[in-house]
Amino acid sequence: MNFPARADLIEVGPRDGLQNEKNLIPTENKLQFIKALKEAGFNEMEITSFVSPKWVPQMADAEEIVRYGSAAGRNIVLTPNEKGLQRALDNDCRAVAFFVGASNTFNQKNINRTTEESMNSLLPLIAKTKDRGLFIRACISTSFYCPYEGKIEEEPVLEICRQFADAGVDDLSVADTIGMANPQEVYSLFSRLKQEFPETLITAHFHDTRGLGLANVLAALQAGVDRFDTSAGGLGGCPFAPGASGNVATEDVLYMLQEMKIETGISLEKVLKAVNSIEPFLNKAISSKQYTLWKAQTAEKAQ
Amino acid sequence: MNFPARADLIEVGPRDGLQNEKNLIPTENKLQFIKALKEAGFNEMEITSFVSPKWVPQMADAEEIVRYGSAAGRNIVLTPNEKGLQRALDNDCRAVAFFVGASNTFNQKNINRTTEESMNSLLPLIAKTKDRGLFIRACISTSFYCPYEGKIEEEPVLEICRQFADAGVDDLSVADTIGMANPQEVYSLFSRLKQEFPETLITAHFHDTRGLGLANVLAALQAGVDRFDTSAGGLGGCPFAPGASGNVATEDVLYMLQEMKIETGISLEKVLKAVNSIEPFLNKAISSKQYTLWKAQTAEKAQ
Repeated sequence: MNFPARADLIEVGPRDGLQNEKNLIPTENKLQFIKALKEAGFNEMEITSFVSPKWVPQMADAEEIVRYGSAAGRNIVLTPNEKGLQRALDNDCRAVAFFVGASNTFNQKNINRTTEESMNSLLPLIAKTKDRGLFIRACISTSFYCPYEGKIEEEPVLEICRQFADAGVDDLSVADTIGMANPQEVYSLFSRLKQEFPETLITAHFHDTRGLGLANVLAALQAGVDRFDTSAGGLGGCPFAPGASGNVATEDVLYMLQEMKIETGISLEKVLKAVNSIEPFLNKAISSKQYTLWKAQTAEKAQ
Repeated sequence: MNFPARADLIEVGPRDGLQNEKNLIPTENKLQFIKALKEAGFNEMEITSFVSPKWVPQMADAEEIVRYGSAAGRNIVLTPNEKGLQRALDNDCRAVAFFVGASNTFNQKNINRTTEESMNSLLPLIAKTKDRGLFIRACISTSFYCPYEGKIEEEPVLEICRQFADAGVDDLSVADTIGMANPQEVYSLFSRLKQEFPETLITAHFHDTRGLGLANVLAALQAGVDRFDTSAGGLGGCPFAPGASGNVATEDVLYMLQEMKIETGISLEKVLKAVNSIEPFLNKAISSKQYTLWKAQTAEKAQ
């Protein structure tokens, strides 16, 4: 078994994690969450989204988050379209993320465009962004399974990645959006991605919907992947399966990497404290393994 | 990535799972649980323990469990010592399990003997059992980590396995009793076990204490392991870490194997129903991923 000696975790909790959260969280508390996570050691973070507040009220404070939450590291903001990109540029953002669904149906239900229409509108935006020297990440959702179409083949995903890579995208975040991929599928697709795009950062984005999150991280590591999107507390995730958990939890991935002696530069204890600071503002209890253990141990010590 | 085409799950819920359960479960309901699990397709099961009812009141009905729960398949009973073995023989059991802790301290705290003393008393019992033609499994607990001694090295574990294999043991169940092993350690030890004992069944026994259960199953599969002890509902597990979950849940392992197209012959739906039948008698809620999803989906359908 071969593994990288070091892996980077890209914390997506403040953006991907909170965007579907029903309770509107005060900006001040989001900023504290971001600060606590940065102090835990993350160099890269998705901090907010320049989306329409009409569709995603939770992200209505994107400007403030960018202004007060961008100290140190790479602060990535999601920009779904030209308008979002313009807001990011107006606010001096230095790293942006675009997204597209590999599944046509998913993309249509999500943003009312076919995958091809999305690509056609994103590629000119990427060219414009690249001219300005920003760091560009592309998020390819439903890269393994789609809730409407079922299994997504590797070739169309690779073709999307080719177009992004040719356009100069720095980072391809390839996502198992509904948490249905298995380790074999993960190993297969990421091996091909690592082979075909040696000059591009390749990030694996997993959901723990059906419990395979860490097994899939293990398979991706074996395929040579050394970048993972993770969400503190396992926040977020598409609400397609009742009872399902969301993004793979930062603290659970971090624990496994630590045990495997794969260096991340991130403090598990500080991540757990950051999770603890945001939990009171959430509409649900956090059920990640490490947080559950930490809370039980903390309660025991207090007795 | 190479995986076996088929894997056997040895269901340990009725024995390992229930033994630490505080509520005394009526024998009739245990028998229904065993029956439901057998109908799900298990060929091998740990069904009860011939331990002193003084120490483990939950297993006081071992004779009845053996008499009424032994239809079809390999029914394994745990026999900690000569007295237990005699009870198993008196009840016409055809498959027995002996156990020892690889960690000396753990073994002493558990049964007041050093590991060597345990081996010295078990080996003659194994010889006696072998003469009678029974199937013999040996469970080696704390094979990776001990709550008192920390990391356990591979060599002493291999040496215990050598003694068992030389004595004619059919099945070596090698356990990460406190759920601290990581996938690298799992791959390393099980690769050596598979290499050194090609004629002996090798079973991996994992706990999901810190969330690495399925990642460790994946690593063991890669080492060539095709037998896993699993517990319906994730029942059981050493109570060393507050907030910790127990044995790796049958339904979670089964789901992963199914998705990986590794044949088991076991019905996930029927396992979930078996778990559902025993849950009302337990002192705690079942938190396995598949069961949580299944209950939420069942509740949604009912609305």
